[in-house]
Amino acid sequence: MRPRVRGFAAAGLHCGIKPSGDLDLALIASDCPAAAAGVFTRNRFPGAPVVLSRRRLRRGRAQVVVVNSGISNVAMGARGARDAERMAHVAADALEVADADVQVASTGVIGQPLPMPRIEAGIRQAASRLSTSGWTRAARAILTTDTRPKLSHAGTRSFDLLGITKGAGMVMPDLATMLGYLFTDLAVKPEFLREALVEAVEPTFNRLTIDGETSTSDTVTILANGRAGNRPLGPRSAGARDFRRTLADVCEDLTEKLAADAEGVSRIGEVIVSGARSDAAAEKMARRIANSVLVKTALFGADPNWGRIVQAAGAAGVPFRTEDFGIRIGGVEVMRGGGPFGGPAAHKRAERAVRAKRVVFEISIGRGRGRARMLTCDLGYGYVRINAEYTT
Amino acid sequence: MRPRVRGFAAAGLHCGIKPSGDLDLALIASDCPAAAAGVFTRNRFPGAPVVLSRRRLRRGRAQVVVVNSGISNVAMGARGARDAERMAHVAADALEVADADVQVASTGVIGQPLPMPRIEAGIRQAASRLSTSGWTRAARAILTTDTRPKLSHAGTRSFDLLGITKGAGMVMPDLATMLGYLFTDLAVKPEFLREALVEAVEPTFNRLTIDGETSTSDTVTILANGRAGNRPLGPRSAGARDFRRTLADVCEDLTEKLAADAEGVSRIGEVIVSGARSDAAAEKMARRIANSVLVKTALFGADPNWGRIVQAAGAAGVPFRTEDFGIRIGGVEVMRGGGPFGGPAAHKRAERAVRAKRVVFEISIGRGRGRARMLTCDLGYGYVRINAEYTT
Repeated sequence: MRPRVRGFAAAGLHCGIKPSGDLDLALIASDCPAAAAGVFTRNRFPGAPVVLSRRRLRRGRAQVVVVNSGISNVAMGARGARDAERMAHVAADALEVADADVQVASTGVIGQPLPMPRIEAGIRQAASRLSTSGWTRAARAILTTDTRPKLSHAGTRSFDLLGITKGAGMVMPDLATMLGYLFTDLAVKPEFLREALVEAVEPTFNRLTIDGETSTSDTVTILANGRAGNRPLGPRSAGARDFRRTLADVCEDLTEKLAADAEGVSRIGEVIVSGARSDAAAEKMARRIANSVLVKTALFGADPNWGRIVQAAGAAGVPFRTEDFGIRIGGVEVMRGGGPFGGPAAHKRAERAVRAKRVVFEISIGRGRGRARMLTCDLGYGYVRINAEYTT
Repeated sequence: MRPRVRGFAAAGLHCGIKPSGDLDLALIASDCPAAAAGVFTRNRFPGAPVVLSRRRLRRGRAQVVVVNSGISNVAMGARGARDAERMAHVAADALEVADADVQVASTGVIGQPLPMPRIEAGIRQAASRLSTSGWTRAARAILTTDTRPKLSHAGTRSFDLLGITKGAGMVMPDLATMLGYLFTDLAVKPEFLREALVEAVEPTFNRLTIDGETSTSDTVTILANGRAGNRPLGPRSAGARDFRRTLADVCEDLTEKLAADAEGVSRIGEVIVSGARSDAAAEKMARRIANSVLVKTALFGADPNWGRIVQAAGAAGVPFRTEDFGIRIGGVEVMRGGGPFGGPAAHKRAERAVRAKRVVFEISIGRGRGRARMLTCDLGYGYVRINAEYTT
């Protein structure tokens, strides 16, 4: 696949941050200013690039994205703000765009200063290598502990939409250490672009949890450069529905790829809570179950341990009647009416079901219409190894 | 040590629940009815013994405690309630006390039925073996995945106070899978007994987190049988202060023992947040840091990774100015004014400090007077092994 989006070009290279020699600098540029929108971490100690990028996006416009991986730019005081500005400035200078049109991100270890001379030289070099076939290298250059470049492309006859993402650990409901960049050649009004982005992120990136952490650098940004030549889309435009659906599809696909490539993951869990009094209540419980370390270690051990689901569900702070509580694991009903169901035969079938690469946990807690879904993953030796033996 | 408390006797034996042959039934009895109080899990799916014991304690009175380990009694529907009543009844019958004066607990795997014939025979046998030197066996008989019996004894010339506890995983702020039983020969008015218990539990058991889970069976109960012959203590009695201090000491000691014997633990972390606007805000942040899987895996890896503390602190939802933020690890200042501090020399010293068995993390977030402390532990291969390969 050679995905393309009219007017956009990308590059990825090794500028000298990662000791492994892996790619660590990504540059993506539109050949004209684009409408832009972004959602950022809710962490109260955001990295300097988040502070800068968020501020600049208030204008609803951007043209260039520059990202380094290997070292993040968080908690570095005044120096951090200067470095983020400088990265943007060097990219703007090399590509002859306004500083304010550059979005910046840095992801990796917290607490080490960025090697600015290398990064600056890398940005200049990347600017000279921008290409419509550079997407995979760009996607590779934003990775940290994840292992595979994650791209998704979709479109219709009239437009394209392409996204790249990195995730690994710390991915959590509040958009934790996740970078996602989306590019389309549609013309979209900035307010609608923002609305559509929030709508697409909520049931996808925001419903994935790896370890319940919330990173300081999370960013999902979309640029729409208008090269498709359409009249700028608003919420009631003819093409709005196609755009929304395509954006949702790409975010969903990227989220699945994030989950599959999370730190040390061997198995994905899909937690669906239904019968709650409201969607918000269902979401609260699904989130608690998806974040439960005990549920996640049981998933790693392929143990259909519904007792741990009961425990996590009860700890969510969501009211329910215990006699309405039921659980299916991989379609097998193991609990009904607040007690075990199906006997040893059901347990045996659940044991087989939980050995799959993807396991669906359905928790039904009453007769309400509230419903929510969360994606989670197992927690095993691999996660511990990565996080205990590697400074992330 | 042969701890004693006048009027109390204890027994522990193997009744046939644990396949290992380890002790799995504990019985403790006073020779007269005692004032009693308890605090229980806030999980919304409490086990049947919790429902029964909580209801019975409303009278402020108990005489006997019976606990089995190996299998819990949670989510078993109507059968669960019957089994809990039955355990209490058999103990009451064997010891010739009223059913209502028996407290019950079951801890272990969720979702298997209790083997009642074995448990009933075990209770009758235990009743015939009650002894003032049975405490260690009783403490051993309530264990699940923890490895050592945990007792604490304190007192003055005029009274004794003895506690036993089990913990291991799922110990968390809201009193998760923790059983704690405290016995004193003082006479204490029931209302004051409850007040003193809540006061003692809050800064001790409630400030310990192993994995952020909240069990369905947590129970801390105190019995005061009055055999010391004092006039029943109220909050303003002469002996109230001694009693309060002794109770706090025993709870503190038991909490330390719980932390040290948590599942797969190799290192304890003490998280102290100061400078917050209120104690509640400090506690919220300390709890978030103490529960952070990334902080806990870094502790396991002996990595003085203050970036992860920054991340967890920022995710707590507590407002602060980033430029006021500072961190000390094992007394070494590694962050000040929102940025790194002390350079490579401090980092080296912090690396040494974090290799200790117990590491203090001091996080200062401003000039407020709010302050809180949480006890946590590392998360390593041992935790994963226990929880992935063993159905708990």
